[in-house]
Amino acid sequence: MKSALGFLVAAKRCEIQGLEQLEVTSGLVKGVCEFVHVLQKERGTSNVFLASRGQRFGEQRQTRIEASVQMEAAVRAQFDQLDTDSGKMASGMRLFSRIAHVLHVLDALPGLRQRIGAQKIGADEATRSFNELIAGLLGVVFEAADTAADPLVSRALVALFNFMQGKELAGQERAAGAAGFALGRFDTAAQQTLTHLIEGQERCFRIFSEFADPTLCQIWRNVQTLPEVAEIERMRRLACAPSPQRLEADAADRWFDCASARIDAMRQVEDCATNALLSLCERKLEETRADLHDQKHFLDSLSASTGTQGAAVAVFFDSGSAGLASGPTDGTSAVLGADGLSPQLGRSVLDLVRAQAQRLQNINEELGTARAALHERKLVDRAKGLLMSQRGLSEEEAYRLLRQTAMNQNRRIADVAEATLALADFLKRD
Amino acid sequence: MKSALGFLVAAKRCEIQGLEQLEVTSGLVKGVCEFVHVLQKERGTSNVFLASRGQRFGEQRQTRIEASVQMEAAVRAQFDQLDTDSGKMASGMRLFSRIAHVLHVLDALPGLRQRIGAQKIGADEATRSFNELIAGLLGVVFEAADTAADPLVSRALVALFNFMQGKELAGQERAAGAAGFALGRFDTAAQQTLTHLIEGQERCFRIFSEFADPTLCQIWRNVQTLPEVAEIERMRRLACAPSPQRLEADAADRWFDCASARIDAMRQVEDCATNALLSLCERKLEETRADLHDQKHFLDSLSASTGTQGAAVAVFFDSGSAGLASGPTDGTSAVLGADGLSPQLGRSVLDLVRAQAQRLQNINEELGTARAALHERKLVDRAKGLLMSQRGLSEEEAYRLLRQTAMNQNRRIADVAEATLALADFLKRD
Repeated sequence: MKSALGFLVAAKRCEIQGLEQLEVTSGLVKGVCEFVHVLQKERGTSNVFLASRGQRFGEQRQTRIEASVQMEAAVRAQFDQLDTDSGKMASGMRLFSRIAHVLHVLDALPGLRQRIGAQKIGADEATRSFNELIAGLLGVVFEAADTAADPLVSRALVALFNFMQGKELAGQERAAGAAGFALGRFDTAAQQTLTHLIEGQERCFRIFSEFADPTLCQIWRNVQTLPEVAEIERMRRLACAPSPQRLEADAADRWFDCASARIDAMRQVEDCATNALLSLCERKLEETRADLHDQKHFLDSLSASTGTQGAAVAVFFDSGSAGLASGPTDGTSAVLGADGLSPQLGRSVLDLVRAQAQRLQNINEELGTARAALHERKLVDRAKGLLMSQRGLSEEEAYRLLRQTAMNQNRRIADVAEATLALADFLKRD
Repeated sequence: MKSALGFLVAAKRCEIQGLEQLEVTSGLVKGVCEFVHVLQKERGTSNVFLASRGQRFGEQRQTRIEASVQMEAAVRAQFDQLDTDSGKMASGMRLFSRIAHVLHVLDALPGLRQRIGAQKIGADEATRSFNELIAGLLGVVFEAADTAADPLVSRALVALFNFMQGKELAGQERAAGAAGFALGRFDTAAQQTLTHLIEGQERCFRIFSEFADPTLCQIWRNVQTLPEVAEIERMRRLACAPSPQRLEADAADRWFDCASARIDAMRQVEDCATNALLSLCERKLEETRADLHDQKHFLDSLSASTGTQGAAVAVFFDSGSAGLASGPTDGTSAVLGADGLSPQLGRSVLDLVRAQAQRLQNINEELGTARAALHERKLVDRAKGLLMSQRGLSEEEAYRLLRQTAMNQNRRIADVAEATLALADFLKRD
C-alpha cells in the first residue's frame, strides 16, 4: 500500500519529468530563436532583391539562404530528437501540432526561394510567406511558454516570447519603413501600419521587461541607448509627421542600416535570454533532484525505524491548519497511531504535505500571472472588437481608447480590456 | 526525418495518452464520490451519537463505519493502481500531492473513530475532522477537473465537482439545521451559517446546471420536485425568520429525515454523473483511436506512393488562410515540390494541419471556460476581500453587493467579481 510520503515522492518525480521536458523544449526554443533571426535576415535581403528587380543584394541573399538552410537543418534535427513515441511529453499534443504546421510550411521554402530567385513573385507576397513561417516558429515558443509548469521557467519563456514577437515587429517595421523612405513619402495607410508596428513593439517590450530578470532588463536598456535607436526615433517622427517632410537622399539606406543595427543588438538580448533559460532549467532540475533525494532519504529512515512505509504516516489526526501552530491546550491533541509512531515523525510528514500544498497553490497563482500576460494580446483584441461593434469605433480608435484609459488610470491595458469585456452589457446600454 | 504528418500522428498519440489517464482519473473520481457519500453518512450518525451522549445511533454508526472502511479500502486500492513510477502522468505533480494529503488524513481516521466511540471528542470537533477529510477528497476531484485536457470531459468534471461541493454543503446544512431545531431556536450566527450554506449550494448547483449535459440537468430538476425538498424550504424559512417561530416538537427529526432524503436523491444524480463521465471517456478514446488509425492509414498511403514520408508533405507553400478558400486566380498558386507530389495530396496535409490548429484553438477556449467556472469561487472571494478592505463592508455585505449587482445587470457573479477586481483603483478613489 502506498503511503502519503510515497505519493509526495511520486509527485516530485513527476515534477522532475516535467522539468526534463522543459529543458528539452528550452533547447528547442533556443534553436528556433536563432533560426527566426536568420530567416528575418533572408526576408530582408529577399525583399530588397525583389524590389530592386534583382539589381541589389543578389550575393548577400545567397549568403543568407546558406545560413538559413544550415539553421533549418539544426532545428529539424532538434525536432527529430523530441520524444514523440512514448507519449510522455505532457504538452505533446499542442507542441507537436505547432511543429507539424512549421514543417509543412518549411517543406515549401525551397520552392519559395526558387520563385524569388526567378523574380516570379512580388516582394509583398514573398514577405508574407516569410512572415507566416516566422509566425509558425513563434507559435512553437508560445506553446512552450504556455505549457511550462514551472513558474520561473514560465516567466522566462513569456519574457522571451514577447521579446521575439517585438523583434519580429521591428523586422516588419524595418521593411515598411524601407519601402516608404525609398518611395520618398508615407501615405496615411503606410503611417498607420508604421504606428501599429511601433505600438505593438512597445507592448511586447513592456511585457518582456515585466517578466525578464533584472540582468536581461539591463542589457535591453543598454540597447536602447544605442545611437542608431535615437536615429530611428528621429526617422520615425519624419515618417509619421502629419505633413510631408523633406527626406534626405540616403534616407532609405540609413533607415535600413539603423534598423538592422537595432535588430542585431536585439539578437544579443535574445542570445542572453536563451542561455539564461537553459541555465535556469538546469538549476531547477538540480534543486528538484536534490529535494527528491532528501525525501527518499527521509522515507528510508522512516521505513528503517518502523519496518513499513505505510505505517510511517499513520500518526495523528489533525483537523485544520490551526492545529499545528497552537499547542495541545486547544483540544486538537495529537494521538498516537496504532503502530506507535511518535507524533514528531507524523508531524514532519504533515509539514511536508502542507508545504507541498502551499507550494502548488503559489505555483498555480504565479503560472496564472505569466500565462495571463501571454494571452494579454488576445484579451486586448477581444475588447477592441467589442468597442468596434458596440460603439462603432474603428480598430485604431478602439485601441487608442483602451490605451488612453489605461494611461489615465495608470493601469495595464489588459486590465482595462478585461474590465471592458466584463462591462459588456453596460456599454451596450448607454 | 520526421514529417509534418508524423508530428500530427505524434500529437494524436499524446492526446490518446491523455485520455487514457483521464479514464483512470475518472474511475478514481467515481470511487472518491462514493467514499465521500458514506463518509457524509458516518459524519451525520457520529454527530447524533455524540450530541445524544451515546444514547442514539450507536448501532447505525457501526453500520456506517463498516461501509466507510469498505469504501476506503476500495479507494486506497485505486490510489495504488495509479501509475506513479513512470512519470507519464502529466497531472501527476498536482494529483499525487492531493492524494498524499488525503492519505495523511485517512491514516488518522481509526484514531478519530476511537475517540468518538469513547466520547472523548466534541460533536463540533468530530464534524470538523470529517469536513477536512471530505474537503481533501473533493480536492482530488478538483484537480482532476482542473487538469483534464479534453473540453467535454473537463465540463463533465466541473459539473460533477460543483455538484459534490453542493451536496457537501447540503450535508453541512443538515447538521447545522439539526442542531438548531434540536435546540428549538436559531440565533443570528446560526441563521447566518444556514444562509451562507444555502447560498453556497445555489452557486454550486447553478454552475452544475451550466456544465452538466441535459439528461443530468433533467434528473436534477426531478430531485427538486420531491416533497421533501418543499418541506426543507418551509423549514429553512422558519429557521431564518427574523422573529422566533413556533417549531413543531418533532422538527429536528423531520428536518434530519427530509435533508437525508434530499441528500440520498443527490447521490442518485452523482451516480448518473460518474457513470456518464466514464462512458464519455470511453467514447472519446474510441473516437481518438479511430482518428489516429485514419491518419496512420493516410500516412501509409502517402509513403506507398512516394517511398518516403518526409517528402509527402513537401508540396506547396501557402501564405495564409486565404490561400485555401480562394482559387488559383488570386496569385497564391500551388507549386509542385521537388518530389513531384500532386498539389491535392499536399492540400490534404494542409487541411489536416489547419483542422488541428483550429481544433486546438477551440479546445483551449472551451477548457478556459470550464476552468474559469472552477475558479469562480476564488474570484468571488478575492472581490469580496477587496470590497471589505476598501469599502469597509462585512463579508456578508460584500457578497450581497456582488450578488445584487449581478442580479440587477443579469450577469454572472464571477463577471461582476472580475470587473470589481479590474476596477480596484477606481473603487479606492470615490
